[in-house]
Amino acid sequence: MTQPSNKRSVLSAVVNELAQANGVLARRPNTRPMPSRDTIVEIVEALRSVLFPGYFGDSELEADSVRYHLGNVLDEVRRKLREQIKRGLCFDCMTPGPTCDQCDARAEEITEFFLTRLPDVRRLLATDVQAAYEGDPAAKSPNETIYCYPGILAITNYRLAHELYALEAPLIPRIMTEAAHSITGIDIHPGATIGESFFIDHGTGVVIGETARLGKRVRLYQGVTLGAKSFPLDEHGNPIKGIDRHPKVEDDVIIYSGATILGPVTIGHGSIVGGNVWLTQSLPPDSRITQAQSVREDFNQGAGI
Amino acid sequence: MTQPSNKRSVLSAVVNELAQANGVLARRPNTRPMPSRDTIVEIVEALRSVLFPGYFGDSELEADSVRYHLGNVLDEVRRKLREQIKRGLCFDCMTPGPTCDQCDARAEEITEFFLTRLPDVRRLLATDVQAAYEGDPAAKSPNETIYCYPGILAITNYRLAHELYALEAPLIPRIMTEAAHSITGIDIHPGATIGESFFIDHGTGVVIGETARLGKRVRLYQGVTLGAKSFPLDEHGNPIKGIDRHPKVEDDVIIYSGATILGPVTIGHGSIVGGNVWLTQSLPPDSRITQAQSVREDFNQGAGI
Amino acid sequence: MTQPSNKRSVLSAVVNELAQANGVLARRPNTRPMPSRDTIVEIVEALRSVLFPGYFGDSELEADSVRYHLGNVLDEVRRKLREQIKRGLCFDCMTPGPTCDQCDARAEEITEFFLTRLPDVRRLLATDVQAAYEGDPAAKSPNETIYCYPGILAITNYRLAHELYALEAPLIPRIMTEAAHSITGIDIHPGATIGESFFIDHGTGVVIGETARLGKRVRLYQGVTLGAKSFPLDEHGNPIKGIDRHPKVEDDVIIYSGATILGPVTIGHGSIVGGNVWLTQSLPPDSRITQAQSVREDFNQGAGI
Amino acid sequence: MTQPSNKRSVLSAVVNELAQANGVLARRPNTRPMPSRDTIVEIVEALRSVLFPGYFGDSELEADSVRYHLGNVLDEVRRKLREQIKRGLCFDCMTPGPTCDQCDARAEEITEFFLTRLPDVRRLLATDVQAAYEGDPAAKSPNETIYCYPGILAITNYRLAHELYALEAPLIPRIMTEAAHSITGIDIHPGATIGESFFIDHGTGVVIGETARLGKRVRLYQGVTLGAKSFPLDEHGNPIKGIDRHPKVEDDVIIYSGATILGPVTIGHGSIVGGNVWLTQSLPPDSRITQAQSVREDFNQGAGI
Amino acid sequence: MTQPSNKRSVLSAVVNELAQANGVLARRPNTRPMPSRDTIVEIVEALRSVLFPGYFGDSELEADSVRYHLGNVLDEVRRKLREQIKRGLCFDCMTPGPTCDQCDARAEEITEFFLTRLPDVRRLLATDVQAAYEGDPAAKSPNETIYCYPGILAITNYRLAHELYALEAPLIPRIMTEAAHSITGIDIHPGATIGESFFIDHGTGVVIGETARLGKRVRLYQGVTLGAKSFPLDEHGNPIKGIDRHPKVEDDVIIYSGATILGPVTIGHGSIVGGNVWLTQSLPPDSRITQAQSVREDFNQGAGI
Amino acid sequence: MTQPSNKRSVLSAVVNELAQANGVLARRPNTRPMPSRDTIVEIVEALRSVLFPGYFGDSELEADSVRYHLGNVLDEVRRKLREQIKRGLCFDCMTPGPTCDQCDARAEEITEFFLTRLPDVRRLLATDVQAAYEGDPAAKSPNETIYCYPGILAITNYRLAHELYALEAPLIPRIMTEAAHSITGIDIHPGATIGESFFIDHGTGVVIGETARLGKRVRLYQGVTLGAKSFPLDEHGNPIKGIDRHPKVEDDVIIYSGATILGPVTIGHGSIVGGNVWLTQSLPPDSRITQAQSVREDFNQGAGI
Repeated sequence: MTQPSNKRSVLSAVVNELAQANGVLARRPNTRPMPSRDTIVEIVEALRSVLFPGYFGDSELEADSVRYHLGNVLDEVRRKLREQIKRGLCFDCMTPGPTCDQCDARAEEITEFFLTRLPDVRRLLATDVQAAYEGDPAAKSPNETIYCYPGILAITNYRLAHELYALEAPLIPRIMTEAAHSITGIDIHPGATIGESFFIDHGTGVVIGETARLGKRVRLYQGVTLGAKSFPLDEHGNPIKGIDRHPKVEDDVIIYSGATILGPVTIGHGSIVGGNVWLTQSLPPDSRITQAQSVREDFNQGAGI
Repeated sequence: MTQPSNKRSVLSAVVNELAQANGVLARRPNTRPMPSRDTIVEIVEALRSVLFPGYFGDSELEADSVRYHLGNVLDEVRRKLREQIKRGLCFDCMTPGPTCDQCDARAEEITEFFLTRLPDVRRLLATDVQAAYEGDPAAKSPNETIYCYPGILAITNYRLAHELYALEAPLIPRIMTEAAHSITGIDIHPGATIGESFFIDHGTGVVIGETARLGKRVRLYQGVTLGAKSFPLDEHGNPIKGIDRHPKVEDDVIIYSGATILGPVTIGHGSIVGGNVWLTQSLPPDSRITQAQSVREDFNQGAGI
Repeated sequence: MTQPSNKRSVLSAVVNELAQANGVLARRPNTRPMPSRDTIVEIVEALRSVLFPGYFGDSELEADSVRYHLGNVLDEVRRKLREQIKRGLCFDCMTPGPTCDQCDARAEEITEFFLTRLPDVRRLLATDVQAAYEGDPAAKSPNETIYCYPGILAITNYRLAHELYALEAPLIPRIMTEAAHSITGIDIHPGATIGESFFIDHGTGVVIGETARLGKRVRLYQGVTLGAKSFPLDEHGNPIKGIDRHPKVEDDVIIYSGATILGPVTIGHGSIVGGNVWLTQSLPPDSRITQAQSVREDFNQGAGI
Repeated sequence: MTQPSNKRSVLSAVVNELAQANGVLARRPNTRPMPSRDTIVEIVEALRSVLFPGYFGDSELEADSVRYHLGNVLDEVRRKLREQIKRGLCFDCMTPGPTCDQCDARAEEITEFFLTRLPDVRRLLATDVQAAYEGDPAAKSPNETIYCYPGILAITNYRLAHELYALEAPLIPRIMTEAAHSITGIDIHPGATIGESFFIDHGTGVVIGETARLGKRVRLYQGVTLGAKSFPLDEHGNPIKGIDRHPKVEDDVIIYSGATILGPVTIGHGSIVGGNVWLTQSLPPDSRITQAQSVREDFNQGAGI
Repeated sequence: MTQPSNKRSVLSAVVNELAQANGVLARRPNTRPMPSRDTIVEIVEALRSVLFPGYFGDSELEADSVRYHLGNVLDEVRRKLREQIKRGLCFDCMTPGPTCDQCDARAEEITEFFLTRLPDVRRLLATDVQAAYEGDPAAKSPNETIYCYPGILAITNYRLAHELYALEAPLIPRIMTEAAHSITGIDIHPGATIGESFFIDHGTGVVIGETARLGKRVRLYQGVTLGAKSFPLDEHGNPIKGIDRHPKVEDDVIIYSGATILGPVTIGHGSIVGGNVWLTQSLPPDSRITQAQSVREDFNQGAGI
Repeated sequence: MTQPSNKRSVLSAVVNELAQANGVLARRPNTRPMPSRDTIVEIVEALRSVLFPGYFGDSELEADSVRYHLGNVLDEVRRKLREQIKRGLCFDCMTPGPTCDQCDARAEEITEFFLTRLPDVRRLLATDVQAAYEGDPAAKSPNETIYCYPGILAITNYRLAHELYALEAPLIPRIMTEAAHSITGIDIHPGATIGESFFIDHGTGVVIGETARLGKRVRLYQGVTLGAKSFPLDEHGNPIKGIDRHPKVEDDVIIYSGATILGPVTIGHGSIVGGNVWLTQSLPPDSRITQAQSVREDFNQGAGI
């Protein structure tokens, strides 16, 4: 058994080694605080209660107080979001000291503009909800999809994050979509562009990349990847950032579960892509494509294939 | 920088726009409260502690108090579940006013009947636990699968939700299976029918549709879809609800990871479906089917394929 | 409506049935407590704050207190982990009574040794972070991947759990990787061996089995399975435990989303495996393999394929 | 040592005895829920943030959102208070069943009227705050007394409770003043009548009875009792309720610490009552009264008097 | 301004000084844990819900589950109390090591015996509740005193603590009565002996010493002290413990607010002691005693006496 | 019953009235945040765990980690206290804008100096603990008084607050002593000066004023007031601040429960003041003083005096 004296040296030794560590994993002490994932989740939940009144948050509001409630929630969102955006801006900002006036001012501008975008986000989400109801025979009413469907949750987070991405708020949009990714398994990069009446059914494993562009009335099932196939490296071997590398999906396309579409290809409008297809080329409009015929074969003995 | 006077009008303007919004996203104020996801999760956790005594909940019970503990937990479940079922019933119920006697009475009936089903649910889950132990060489004991395997968690939620689905409780069963979906990535519709000794290994991305029917001793791996291929629309373009549209999987079938099986096809007993297969046709008993041979090819240059 | 007298008998009857249940689902009352999932998650989060100082936990530390903070966190980890490991050891231990000196001593040994491994774990994770930055054009800096990428979270949990697995702590490593599985959809068995500079992008649906061995600079995308194909049964029909049954992936291999590789095959160094491939055979070094050509076909009418 | 079998009978025996208990301590099961102390404390804290804006609750409000915040807080107070008042009314109400329409309607009326009284309560409290500042040389500003003085806290709870008492809401006013009693040691019955510019310094041990009437600019120190001396009994030996039995204190009276004044006597305006006085008779205006001269004496030996 | 280098030495210097401190304030590290005040408060609240069913704890129990609820609460009390009593016993116990079998066994005995005392405690409390109702004209019903009167709360804590004191459980009884002291300002030593039908009105400042003995139907008002006058010292100057040093109060005595009675005197049955009296001698039965006549005098000028 | 339209106007009307309120009760919106009572309580609790190691906070520390724990706690105290002191300074500071560099710098200075005072505070408290043990025959050990005696809690808060008062930190010291006042009923102004070996027994109702000065080995019982008798007003009728107006109590004085001593008088060393005495004059050393003889009299009939 370890002796007490050894125990002491174990703890001290590990502390010493870790305290001396440098390099990629260490942030400088005394720097400004990181954005708070918990607060960002609170912001998104508050906005969800504003976008879907009566479904989330306080569902017992009375007629004469709805306006007070909205104003109060948005004021709280405003303050919290401003602080989080500032932290995101400061994450890489080089200004020394505990505060940075430029980040403060920019955070306030972004926040104010973001608020003005909420009514449009709400209009888009109304089309998504209708698409969910029309796209799933198991849905009894549009109401039910608002309250129970992971796809609606993920699209809501994405649509909010996309507005912040367009305003060049760093980190915060990604944290918003990662929060939805963790809950739903749906990973939509906030930089992607997605038209109205979008529906993702079940959704676990869906990936939509940063430069993907989706038209109207697109429907995806679980496990669909709209990803990058390859990307050029710079002279240091690092990937060159910001290059268009993801698929364009035109209006009225359906992609079945597990299909993988990679690269800046175009899936023409009205196409249907079958499940588990691996696709790295463009498709003309109204295409139908499925996996090659499966084959029957003899398996090995034992308890598996 | 934004002026204070502008800030005031931003907030007011957004509040006004959102307060006037109508249509699909708005519930009427003053309606009865929504079911509570948090409470439903509490109910399921309480039931898990009853179904797997000593593993979940209070693991330090003494011999002379087990019965008190069971009775107390079930009484609390009874009250909470009755309230949640009532809210589910009221979600679409048209009776005006703050209460609805009919929903109250129906919620009580469903809850009482549901309680009587718990011993049978427990018997089924015992076969599932044994199947997990026998189906995974990495499992050291059945105990371990109860405590650590996401498949057991998802099947438990499903089996509880399925009983409420059969009793026609709206919304609540779906919220129960979505809770498991969020934790495990396994999405089993509460309407599906699944026989004893069912095992899902790893599980992320599994989807089992509303009208799927699975026999005994079925084993699925992660990413398996038992989904709908297409569904007829009514004259308004909405999907016709309630039609049989998902696979039937007979006894002793194994389906490997990523396989997609769509439509009301039948996978005959004893069959093995290989990974990543796309299947929209029935298979006779004892079939073995795998993806068509993969091909070697030259990839593009760069950091990817 | 159910009568009160019936209600009483319903509750009593269910309690009686459940209290009498025996067999696989029941732990004996009075046994020692189960490991606590919540505490294990706290331990991992505390270690994350130690491994990535400034990113997680208390991000406002000052220069003169870093060492105190590290020492304090590690001391708390030490006590909590020792208790949890003891519970894990006691889970199957047959010693009667409320305590077991042997488990106590063994838990202390494992914990002390584990602490000495943290600096090495930290060095490995630094290579993983750099690999994430280099492997994703969407990443603006290595910092961002530490804070936002689910792959980094899952690999961190795995690398910690793997150390405990190597020290033969039961249950706890599995609970650690399952915690990451639930958040990220990435399921890495703590027994797997994974070299430096490992990157998983997006990650939902990734499965890496107990006896898998991965070299350096391996990159995986979402939905990749490195699983078992079949496994031999013993004379009782139970799977024989501990047999090598998962793939070996050599250095510098990339595997695209949704690929399923089963069995103890070897993927030679420098190979690239395309998305959605089903592979049960070894590949020589520098292979390129993709799914067979997809086919266009006529779909059924209606709202789907 | 107690045997397990004995242990079992101990628990069962105690449960049986307690379950059979009847009489004064038992409420009938199935009755409507009790008022919630925690909720009533939340209501008072919410009102405190409305009455002293910027001191309590959310102190970072911005100019354009104060109105939204007020409206939202008052709406929440309205709903919670209505429910608590209903529970208070139902506490003794004999109507059977889970709800009582009469209590519902009365609770709504009381709540609405109570809200209209808040501006007047606020005006009174402003005079109390000024009196605290003027009455204590240790107070640096009126602000400080709002935030730190237990007397202000107790008077605020009293003034709110008094309004509900006047509206004949049962139980709730008493719970409000008891909450202040517990925090400050100041016990003001909600039925007492107290004029403007009231100040209690330190306050621990102050008691002001149900039928006490205090004028303007009264100042009390800790330990002052304004209580009942005796009260008549009815034919069953129970005290006759509602009889005037407490002191009347006219304007501009100061009562020093520990004075006990009992019975329906009158302390004339401008009087000063010295500390530790026992007084059961009226005083004319502008009286000065102190305890009889203390005496020096020889004490017993030892460590005390 | 302090320099960073100074800041570092400040923290280090203070840590060094405090770490070296010895003597009365330091417990040895590695000793067994202290009793937990929070847990003891939970135990008392659980017992309150058992002693006053329907008033505290879960007030919505149904008729068929009361027994389950009681059994479950008492089982939880049993486990928590056993642990806390063990910690109390270990607080001064000299046995080295992390556990002490003797303390374990004694804690179990005390706990079991304590449980058997609960029905008697309940019977006594029923008389106290009736006394409160009869002793206060402001009380509308006995129910109200159970729920709102600090005297009932303090007496309940005392009666429970007194049972543990009689069983010689160290520390825990005192923590129980101190919890009530903090809430109500009533400080009853758990060693005091108090007969049935005991009522304390308002209560702030009441002190009842360890060796006080009170008969039946005693009524006290706020600020009454039943304390020690002096106590002999041993040869080291420490007070000799355990000597009878507090008043005996016979049946049917009333003591008004602020009276101080010190020493092992006897207040004869039926006596009434007026407010603010200082009494260090015995009184024969049926005495009436009040403070000497107060005197009017001229006060100093200014804002006070 | 109130109509919905009326309800709307009630809420709006009250909001309008309250929003327009001005004057003493309103803080300007947009000002810097108030000190946080909860955080100040956390700071005091953290310091208590540092001053009484092993009794409060984490009681399971191991020998090799005490120093890490101390350093970590003090670092957290340092950051939190700096922020709270800054808020206190800003409470009245007139500098516009969201931050104030001068308050920042001053808060840092005060905090650093305060930390260096902790070892001395600890030495003083050790004498207080010993005095408690020696002053109460009911105390079994000094340990017990640390953990259970409200007097020790109140003195600890006072001694910490007094250091901050001496450093001229506004508001925070008062909030610290008010926190103890609320828990114990003991109200010690942070400005008072109190020598070593100070003991307050029971304590409810004790008041010690801002300019009181107490020597060594003073012992007080519950309900003792060391207050101001009168205070001069300035030309506006406001009390003149900062004048010496409270008693001086020399070494080795005992004051029994309920005694009221007012004004800048001196109680000579070695004196004993009996309970319930009203004293506004100085006493020479070694005095003994008690209340004038109480009188027996005939009471009124009924249930009281």
